[in-house]
Amino acid sequence: MSVPPLVVVPAQTGTAFELSSGEILTVVAPEGSQVADLAFYSKADPRESFSSGRTIDYAESILLTTGAVLYSNRSNPMAQIVADDVGRHDCLLAPCSARMFQLLRGQNDHPSCHENLAMALRKYGIDPDDIGSTFNAFMNVDVTDGRIAILPPLSKPGSAILFESRMDLIIGLTACSSEYTNGGSCRPVAYVLGSAP
Amino acid sequence: MSVPPLVVVPAQTGTAFELSSGEILTVVAPEGSQVADLAFYSKADPRESFSSGRTIDYAESILLTTGAVLYSNRSNPMAQIVADDVGRHDCLLAPCSARMFQLLRGQNDHPSCHENLAMALRKYGIDPDDIGSTFNAFMNVDVTDGRIAILPPLSKPGSAILFESRMDLIIGLTACSSEYTNGGSCRPVAYVLGSAP
Repeated sequence: MSVPPLVVVPAQTGTAFELSSGEILTVVAPEGSQVADLAFYSKADPRESFSSGRTIDYAESILLTTGAVLYSNRSNPMAQIVADDVGRHDCLLAPCSARMFQLLRGQNDHPSCHENLAMALRKYGIDPDDIGSTFNAFMNVDVTDGRIAILPPLSKPGSAILFESRMDLIIGLTACSSEYTNGGSCRPVAYVLGSAP
Repeated sequence: MSVPPLVVVPAQTGTAFELSSGEILTVVAPEGSQVADLAFYSKADPRESFSSGRTIDYAESILLTTGAVLYSNRSNPMAQIVADDVGRHDCLLAPCSARMFQLLRGQNDHPSCHENLAMALRKYGIDPDDIGSTFNAFMNVDVTDGRIAILPPLSKPGSAILFESRMDLIIGLTACSSEYTNGGSCRPVAYVLGSAP
């Protein structure tokens, strides 16, 4: 039996690919301590996309881990988390963007997940305005008394999270570009398409 | 000096209107204990809309009250909360929808904020798929250890929240249709356009 290849997404870059209904996407932090933002779209109609607001409502939780279903803006199941080595991910924050680095850190022309997703998803005709809610794998956001704090990821080298698709999907995936979010420096992520859990 | 009129939004309905940059929108819970979902769009290009993910990131908080700026998916300021009698609102959850009532409560054909917003915003050419993030005034969502719990609103009869627009806006506004969210029964909301704070 052939083993599906592990594809590396270099630090501060992004990619996009398709995943058929029922297939597995494995996202890995090869060196640990690195966030991977995921954007999900229906292949049949990419105007249907992941909605954190619907997903949180149906999960009754902001902490999504094994068993959680990711819902679309049309309330359809898009994918389910079927395994999770870390158990700490974010679905509240929008992906980092060039404008975010200007506003929050005074940095111009910083690479960002939003621009990397926009570039990678262009071949599928997805409008940058539709890159809104993302599932930010391994992102460690603490919410205490309403205040949020972005902490270093809890992922170890090789930590993985597995998604089983519930519809034919277009997926954007980044190795997050924010040093601040990734414990001080940016590393690659990696993924495997189509492997059984 | 003429006083701008108070407009009532009947229980389980919605409306939409324009607000010019610098003008004030006052949203009132006339009988208390009632949620009002607000959807914000740029009049210049309604594909620019309120983003909870950007707003939470820039506010470093999920609890938005006086002083907080509501940001768009393009990271532009859309409106600022300039007064707030209650201090407890939600920006995590998507507006209730017919599908939500089916999924969570087994109720068919229940009126909903999403359908009411879609109907009210149709005249501005806004696609129902673009009704995603909303600011849910007076909605009382507790987040403890990641779990969310929807509690009765803390608003008293006449409680108000005031928004000053930072761009020319199209705004959708509902008297939320969910009995569960509104302490057991649905009531009207009301609003005033253009009054000084």
